Amino acid sequence: MRFDIITVLPALLESPFAHSILQRAQKKGIAEIVVHNLRDYATNKQKSVDDYQYGGGSGMVMSIEPFAACIEKLQAEREYDEIIFMSPDGVTLNQSTANELSIKQNIIILCGHYKGIDQRIRDIFVTREISVGDYVLSGGELPAAIVVDAVVRLIPGVLNDETSALSDSFQGELLDAPVYTRPADWRGHKVPDVLLSGHEARVNEWRHEQALERTKTRRPDLLE
Amino acid sequence: MRFDIITVLPALLESPFAHSILQRAQKKGIAEIVVHNLRDYATNKQKSVDDYQYGGGSGMVMSIEPFAACIEKLQAEREYDEIIFMSPDGVTLNQSTANELSIKQNIIILCGHYKGIDQRIRDIFVTREISVGDYVLSGGELPAAIVVDAVVRLIPGVLNDETSALSDSFQGELLDAPVYTRPADWRGHKVPDVLLSGHEARVNEWRHEQALERTKTRRPDLLE
Repeated sequence: MRFDIITVLPALLESPFAHSILQRAQKKGIAEIVVHNLRDYATNKQKSVDDYQYGGGSGMVMSIEPFAACIEKLQAEREYDEIIFMSPDGVTLNQSTANELSIKQNIIILCGHYKGIDQRIRDIFVTREISVGDYVLSGGELPAAIVVDAVVRLIPGVLNDETSALSDSFQGELLDAPVYTRPADWRGHKVPDVLLSGHEARVNEWRHEQALERTKTRRPDLLE
Repeated sequence: MRFDIITVLPALLESPFAHSILQRAQKKGIAEIVVHNLRDYATNKQKSVDDYQYGGGSGMVMSIEPFAACIEKLQAEREYDEIIFMSPDGVTLNQSTANELSIKQNIIILCGHYKGIDQRIRDIFVTREISVGDYVLSGGELPAAIVVDAVVRLIPGVLNDETSALSDSFQGELLDAPVYTRPADWRGHKVPDVLLSGHEARVNEWRHEQALERTKTRRPDLLE
């Protein structure tokens, strides 16, 4: 699977893609993540990629031309399944979208900045607009990293223990039960007895009860 | 405002905090972001920070001791308003939480990994559990960066144009209207006439209509 990310801040994305699971996935050849500097596609002398917005108002708007040039160059090289624009007014990312994207081959992600991107980029090129949540961020870079992380870890072979991804919160209908590790007693705060009992059936029952209880308390919407 | 982030992958967070608005906020002395390597607080010879989970099952659980040691060292240095644990089963981050956090002074953020963190850390130390959305990620680092970005940009003096943050999506009740910049005609795709009219009242009316329409179509829940 290949991600092409188009951004004015390629350096911002360096470390998130160079560590942990994303690094491993790239080393194994399972995922390819290529970050493109939008400024390399600027057509004017100042290498500017934004301009004042029509109709007035504060905030610069990213121009269509550099995005178009970068996207069209990539499209000439291979076919893309999706061109995603990260935007707070997109469809909110959830685990089922991540699952869906994890079976695609090639995905372009556009990162916006400033006041936004020229609407024609969205109308003409973008196939899917995704928001990571109802909050405003400085740009689309961290959201792009979130999408790549959420998706890549689902590709078979990326996680060491494939059952791990399946037993995560949101893959089932319940939140995870509480987990504990040593020491069994930390300054008088003890691990629940049942987890030390060695009785597998009782452990499973307790975990299910706890998961159900936590979901009821915290996220009753997931049970509806 | 100061953020202390505790993680096993400090290097993953290097570039997001070294660019753009977060860099500017730190240079201006408005925000201080300190990343702590949890392994520096490991108490055993192997510098391990996790262990098998009680009750069995795949996935390692992060131990209470290193987190406790790091948190208690920080608490001895200054008072903290919040100790936040980034977790998919936390309360979903939204703009109002970001606003609320932006007036705090000192915040610790704990990044989880693997199967999770020992429940006692959450019970004893954590004051607030935040999720950035209903999807599973490799760890709490990107979510921590999201929280820091969403919060720091709201602190007065961080953005060049203070009205910018206030006119973003989610600060009002409506999504943003479409934005356009030059050229007025790109391969036959034209900017709406009204935005070229120079008639401010009509521009504002059009923007409000578009914002309302977009919100109705995409996020009717915001209008309820």
